[in-house]
Amino acid sequence: MSKFRTEFDSIGGIQVPAEAYYGAQTLRGKNNFHITGYKVSPLFMNSMAMVKKAAAMANCEAGVISKKVSDAIIMAGDEIIAGKMHDQFITDVIQGGAGTSMNMNMNEVIANRANEILGGEKGVYDLVHPNDHVNYCQSTNDVIPTTGKLTILRMSRKMLVSLEKLYDALMEKSKEFDGVIKMGRTHLQDAIPIRLGQEFRAYAQPIKRDINRIKSVLEDFQNVNMGATAVGTGLNADVSYVKSVVRFLSDVSGIELIQSEDLVDGTRNLDVFVWMSSALKICAVNLSKMVNDLRLMASGPTAGFNEINLPQMQPGSSIMPGKVNPVILEVMNQVSFQVFGNDLTITKAAEAGQLELNVFEPVLFFNLFQSIEILKNGVDTLVENCIEGITANEARCKKMVDDSIGILTALNPHIGYKNASDIAKESLKKGIPVATLLVRKGLISQEAIDVILNPFNMTNPGISGKELLPR
Amino acid sequence: MSKFRTEFDSIGGIQVPAEAYYGAQTLRGKNNFHITGYKVSPLFMNSMAMVKKAAAMANCEAGVISKKVSDAIIMAGDEIIAGKMHDQFITDVIQGGAGTSMNMNMNEVIANRANEILGGEKGVYDLVHPNDHVNYCQSTNDVIPTTGKLTILRMSRKMLVSLEKLYDALMEKSKEFDGVIKMGRTHLQDAIPIRLGQEFRAYAQPIKRDINRIKSVLEDFQNVNMGATAVGTGLNADVSYVKSVVRFLSDVSGIELIQSEDLVDGTRNLDVFVWMSSALKICAVNLSKMVNDLRLMASGPTAGFNEINLPQMQPGSSIMPGKVNPVILEVMNQVSFQVFGNDLTITKAAEAGQLELNVFEPVLFFNLFQSIEILKNGVDTLVENCIEGITANEARCKKMVDDSIGILTALNPHIGYKNASDIAKESLKKGIPVATLLVRKGLISQEAIDVILNPFNMTNPGISGKELLPR
Amino acid sequence: MSKFRTEFDSIGGIQVPAEAYYGAQTLRGKNNFHITGYKVSPLFMNSMAMVKKAAAMANCEAGVISKKVSDAIIMAGDEIIAGKMHDQFITDVIQGGAGTSMNMNMNEVIANRANEILGGEKGVYDLVHPNDHVNYCQSTNDVIPTTGKLTILRMSRKMLVSLEKLYDALMEKSKEFDGVIKMGRTHLQDAIPIRLGQEFRAYAQPIKRDINRIKSVLEDFQNVNMGATAVGTGLNADVSYVKSVVRFLSDVSGIELIQSEDLVDGTRNLDVFVWMSSALKICAVNLSKMVNDLRLMASGPTAGFNEINLPQMQPGSSIMPGKVNPVILEVMNQVSFQVFGNDLTITKAAEAGQLELNVFEPVLFFNLFQSIEILKNGVDTLVENCIEGITANEARCKKMVDDSIGILTALNPHIGYKNASDIAKESLKKGIPVATLLVRKGLISQEAIDVILNPFNMTNPGISGKELLPR
Amino acid sequence: MSKFRTEFDSIGGIQVPAEAYYGAQTLRGKNNFHITGYKVSPLFMNSMAMVKKAAAMANCEAGVISKKVSDAIIMAGDEIIAGKMHDQFITDVIQGGAGTSMNMNMNEVIANRANEILGGEKGVYDLVHPNDHVNYCQSTNDVIPTTGKLTILRMSRKMLVSLEKLYDALMEKSKEFDGVIKMGRTHLQDAIPIRLGQEFRAYAQPIKRDINRIKSVLEDFQNVNMGATAVGTGLNADVSYVKSVVRFLSDVSGIELIQSEDLVDGTRNLDVFVWMSSALKICAVNLSKMVNDLRLMASGPTAGFNEINLPQMQPGSSIMPGKVNPVILEVMNQVSFQVFGNDLTITKAAEAGQLELNVFEPVLFFNLFQSIEILKNGVDTLVENCIEGITANEARCKKMVDDSIGILTALNPHIGYKNASDIAKESLKKGIPVATLLVRKGLISQEAIDVILNPFNMTNPGISGKELLPR
Repeated sequence: MSKFRTEFDSIGGIQVPAEAYYGAQTLRGKNNFHITGYKVSPLFMNSMAMVKKAAAMANCEAGVISKKVSDAIIMAGDEIIAGKMHDQFITDVIQGGAGTSMNMNMNEVIANRANEILGGEKGVYDLVHPNDHVNYCQSTNDVIPTTGKLTILRMSRKMLVSLEKLYDALMEKSKEFDGVIKMGRTHLQDAIPIRLGQEFRAYAQPIKRDINRIKSVLEDFQNVNMGATAVGTGLNADVSYVKSVVRFLSDVSGIELIQSEDLVDGTRNLDVFVWMSSALKICAVNLSKMVNDLRLMASGPTAGFNEINLPQMQPGSSIMPGKVNPVILEVMNQVSFQVFGNDLTITKAAEAGQLELNVFEPVLFFNLFQSIEILKNGVDTLVENCIEGITANEARCKKMVDDSIGILTALNPHIGYKNASDIAKESLKKGIPVATLLVRKGLISQEAIDVILNPFNMTNPGISGKELLPR
Repeated sequence: MSKFRTEFDSIGGIQVPAEAYYGAQTLRGKNNFHITGYKVSPLFMNSMAMVKKAAAMANCEAGVISKKVSDAIIMAGDEIIAGKMHDQFITDVIQGGAGTSMNMNMNEVIANRANEILGGEKGVYDLVHPNDHVNYCQSTNDVIPTTGKLTILRMSRKMLVSLEKLYDALMEKSKEFDGVIKMGRTHLQDAIPIRLGQEFRAYAQPIKRDINRIKSVLEDFQNVNMGATAVGTGLNADVSYVKSVVRFLSDVSGIELIQSEDLVDGTRNLDVFVWMSSALKICAVNLSKMVNDLRLMASGPTAGFNEINLPQMQPGSSIMPGKVNPVILEVMNQVSFQVFGNDLTITKAAEAGQLELNVFEPVLFFNLFQSIEILKNGVDTLVENCIEGITANEARCKKMVDDSIGILTALNPHIGYKNASDIAKESLKKGIPVATLLVRKGLISQEAIDVILNPFNMTNPGISGKELLPR
Repeated sequence: MSKFRTEFDSIGGIQVPAEAYYGAQTLRGKNNFHITGYKVSPLFMNSMAMVKKAAAMANCEAGVISKKVSDAIIMAGDEIIAGKMHDQFITDVIQGGAGTSMNMNMNEVIANRANEILGGEKGVYDLVHPNDHVNYCQSTNDVIPTTGKLTILRMSRKMLVSLEKLYDALMEKSKEFDGVIKMGRTHLQDAIPIRLGQEFRAYAQPIKRDINRIKSVLEDFQNVNMGATAVGTGLNADVSYVKSVVRFLSDVSGIELIQSEDLVDGTRNLDVFVWMSSALKICAVNLSKMVNDLRLMASGPTAGFNEINLPQMQPGSSIMPGKVNPVILEVMNQVSFQVFGNDLTITKAAEAGQLELNVFEPVLFFNLFQSIEILKNGVDTLVENCIEGITANEARCKKMVDDSIGILTALNPHIGYKNASDIAKESLKKGIPVATLLVRKGLISQEAIDVILNPFNMTNPGISGKELLPR
Repeated sequence: MSKFRTEFDSIGGIQVPAEAYYGAQTLRGKNNFHITGYKVSPLFMNSMAMVKKAAAMANCEAGVISKKVSDAIIMAGDEIIAGKMHDQFITDVIQGGAGTSMNMNMNEVIANRANEILGGEKGVYDLVHPNDHVNYCQSTNDVIPTTGKLTILRMSRKMLVSLEKLYDALMEKSKEFDGVIKMGRTHLQDAIPIRLGQEFRAYAQPIKRDINRIKSVLEDFQNVNMGATAVGTGLNADVSYVKSVVRFLSDVSGIELIQSEDLVDGTRNLDVFVWMSSALKICAVNLSKMVNDLRLMASGPTAGFNEINLPQMQPGSSIMPGKVNPVILEVMNQVSFQVFGNDLTITKAAEAGQLELNVFEPVLFFNLFQSIEILKNGVDTLVENCIEGITANEARCKKMVDDSIGILTALNPHIGYKNASDIAKESLKKGIPVATLLVRKGLISQEAIDVILNPFNMTNPGISGKELLPR
């Protein structure tokens, strides 16, 4: 038996491996685009199988394809949804043609498998045809954006769970460290006391906002453009199909979807994808800022801040014995940097659309899916291998507060900014603690100092010790 | 009389122009930062005067500064709000110190003016002191972020009005052009017919989403961190002041503001500013895409698409007579590119915060304010000098539809994708119109062609002419 | 026999698959970083094997490791260079720890294989130890940057060959199209005639500059920091080894390398990588601009410019019969967008280095390697599947010139800019060709028109027909 | 007398202030583009006056304009070069039309001034005409790119001087701090000793590379496209003018310039501007990294590294007495962030060119000029107000070395990585210095420790104390 079959399309004939479920157009796509070596995301192809299944159901209900053909398409689609035949999806993740090759890859695989189910032969599309049946009432230009949105809705769920865990872990630490007094720093310079728990709470808050932002953006992803066909006018889409296909897709996917009110808009504009990427980018900003801080706080142990200890996950150095590096935090930084770059690519791709279509969806999806996945993965390792195991060096933190001049701030309301500044300079110059200087100069009583310069008091609003001093 | 007075701060003495309302610290800030040559935005300084006025009211109510001093501060603040003394704000828009120089510039100008009001002398801060009175219960670290948010809320109002006008103008054109049939293009290749009005409606939709996104983001800007002082713990802020200051600021500014629930978070994290910049960036993506399209549609007149005519705003060329260029659209592109770059600077600035403070607010504000202003200005000229005056070349649009093979798509449901492809190839090769070929081949009757290939029918969902053909 | 062996490191014991050549630290790295699912580039690991081989040679010559151990390391290294054992390199391409896990992965694989060669057992490092022998006189901090540079030097060679082919193909087309006169467009508006060959030559020139820029940047990559060890001071590196290791690496790799004059600088600063990424980004700018133009010129066929024809590589549409899309050009755009984003990630990673080390090399390398590879792949398909097959629609190009008013520019020197403008307006308004109008108005003789308005004359400098007109 | 005169162009009549040297087209440009409120850079307009002067000289020599007119243009040009009439340049820095408005602004100002010189009247262009004389043989499309390049060549000189000063200051500090031993840190964790002087030398090296990169890029800016006119074909440019104009411009500007070999390429492609921006961006990367490090080293004084002291330039805080912040370093960071964003805008603008022209030069120049100027200004304040005044806290630096376990690395060659790791862990756990532990365990003699663990020895390559230990 021959190892190849010949298939024909409008370009001409092409040799397709005899056993392949994909066909001529898939193969041309593969041959034209050897770019990254990465295949299209399995979850994306999985979601596209749902689209094809829903379309078959809507076409059948509309009476424009037969129940027999529809059932075969649905059965083939279900197999793909169940994870089968994914090795048949062979086109590069970055491809020209606005995803036509991905779409045709799916159309051909389903057609051939459906033909097989109906007793037909691969490569002979008389029973079920990739375009005239599987793709019926559809176009790449509604299938691909719709599949992209569905994929993002599905993919984001897991990421949101991970972000929730991060939020919880940070709030947990916030409680655990509520009694740890330490020096707050602004401009990296000693400022005034703060509690380590307050800091962790302040790391948790933006994560909560990130979660809310992402959720709010995802609402826009429920609007899909199935029924638009080539340019959004719905040409060639049966009217009854147009009315039902999104409802069927909601059923098939288990995700509530709505048909875009303006299908022309829904077909050409990718702004909601940039909005999603922006939300992810801001999450990356918050994460990168947080892990930068944690790396600083964990710096040392001798020649650094040494306020917290990170779990030791691996030997730190191939040369320096005993060194343990903040590797989990460092990988979170790098995930953030990757998300920054991906956002730029996504922005550029969205801006480059022309007239009725944005043909740059493949590179946009590649980057957006990657951002979601690596953020999720990065946050998972961050929570499990780092945040949960952080401990505080309480004594060290306290000592830095006691040795600092920053606590003088609390005296402003009592002795004025200028006097306090003079004390600060003198203390630094002579190496005499501020409290000693204050008493020596008779500016303030020891009793007042004990109240006013109590660092815990300083971590809450208000002016302490007013009653102890004449104004 | 001397032209200078000598002022002292913790660094030492410095010569200040005798007539200046600003003082020593302002001058140091000015001397340290000769960077852009641009001054801080007047609206920002105006908003900061509101913050100082509100703080004086709250401090007075709390009984921590006297009514006399408070009244003088309020009067000086009102003068600045009314537009006076803005030549006294002299620090560069990009400055180190997290905006301390801007804040001290305001504190010193108000203090000197208030002193003057109370009969005192410039540079002698015995009646009203920049730190101990004007800045009382405050820190640069709550004043600057709060002022930034207030400024953005005020600045965005006008931009939103401009965007609404753009939306209206596009919808108006959408109605005007509803009867203009033209060739839709995907991949810049002839696709299928569409109505020019459908296209303009599809330009309007993302602008509507932009408006909604920006409005939704602005809600987050109502949360301000007044009361936080240096690191968010509220040290040195009188408890009663902390409770009232945001309420006073709402009254003074006429904008509803809320105190951040977590003031430590509110002092260090700038993620909401990046969210705003993202919303602006996406608006710029949509605008750039739209004007790219309009420049394409207006290309020619002979060697281009020539579907629409733009208002002629200025001679196009210093060398080519009669040439008129799409200059308004081109400036909109450039505004968009500027907003893209600004967004990167803003993102980087937000990510670079460390520990209790993000000291990079000045560059962030400079870029964010600029994005808002140039978007507004760009949209204004776009609406007035371009969109409103666009006219359509109806006959030219229609002719390109009639000459195209793209209309064959409507025959797919009737003769199948493969047959239609063959006709397309033959038509292109032989230069025979598709309708002629179809009739000649007896594939379809002239009557059916008149219905099925009617381009207007093709711009709405559905398969026309089903009844005219046996299936 | 057990399927696992237990290995110990400074963190504790860990179960390693019994057959694995990698060891404890590799496995920890793998477990800590499940981020992208992509493994480190094979060419990078291949280059690192060269580094280890060169180090073993230098250590042997210096007498600090025995010939027996050195030979075993070299033999293991050679196997990896020949492509063996690459399935043992299992760490994620984005990882924390500045590449320690990659380096230890290599150290462990070589150590275990070398032990095996010497008759020892996997996981027992008594004969050859990953740190004390394979990594001897080295640190992750000199091995990783050096390997990165070597990889880029090797990887770029192929890309440069592809760019040269593109340059040649464009110059070839430039000659082929030298006689094709067409309308030049500025602002997308008809300007003055140009030859299609001139345009293709103007696409070739920036590619030549790209090649020169990349070559010039690559010279900086010959400076490597072997001998630096942990922070560039060379601690623990035998002096004689330090002197010879780079010479050995040049021999092993066949690439001329030089030891950085300042090894502290060479260890911490990644600016040359950003310089390389910038050169690639600019190449992407040029490519994206070029393919945008080509897509425009190929637009239509009916409703577009239709000046050139692209080779038909695959059916263009799943719905529109006969449509052929510029898919190869579109993938080139997307490659460019990816390179833009990668450049941002690379820039951010380079900027984020702290003190003695930049720990973000893994994400930087991932992006830089990808940029090089996809640019090469994109250019290959561009040349073979598009540029070489482009043909010109000569008659169509000529007709647009003849129908245009842009040719009036040539009359400026004869009748002045203002008169020429008036003629242009009248021609457009009345639809009368400019030549007819000029003669009718007696402004210029038919004979002069034939010379002055000859479009070919207009594509070269100079004022034609001066002699035919009185000044 | 009327305050306005009426001028006419191809759009119609417009009221121009009677005293204005600019004319109709300038005013239209101003009215169309109210975008940033910033005017075009004076140095750019200054350089454009040089271009006009050179063109007049070339035109005169070629005999295509009279000596009288040429002399008047030259005289007017010289006045502008000398700084006069710059208030007449009124168009916004971001404008549509590829700079036509800037060019016409110059043409009109020169024409009116030249008319005046020749005894004519403003607004009556019979003696000297903006297009037919001042712009003769030119187009916006060669004048603007040429002026841009000339401006950058002139502007960069000062920046290079500033960068040289920075390099010198860093090398000076490198010598000053050569004897200051401190703890090197990788991953922000204690690593091994290094000398502060070595660090400063490693900050100087990339600045030297920056200078070399910028100088090398500037060579490309000597290629200008004067003679290209509208699309690079040189239409309407007298052949003898084309040959001489660049030579004249070299003479007028005092800068060696060369005519582009391919003027079509020179007119449309802006890649060399992106190359310049990339060089500036990398300089910003190096600067931002350096000042981040310096801010870290200066952190504290109590709760931070406190290795160096920065000059105190201004009071650090409006609330915290005695606080001095690293404001000069912070402004350098912000300048860098601005340059990053500008680079993105520049890249986008360069990529967006279409066909014969890139119309987005105005926004590109705005950003590129700003990057050059703020880098220069930032570096100036950095050198004068920070670097030159840095002092070292030698005792503090030394103590952190003595207290650290990082010095154990030097024992690897003697006792092996594993043993050294065990000692490290034990030392950290028990709080016993490593030296004490080593002697107590009899692993090494005190004599050997004194040599091997001498931190100064550790800052140079080599294994110390080999002779003191048996292997």
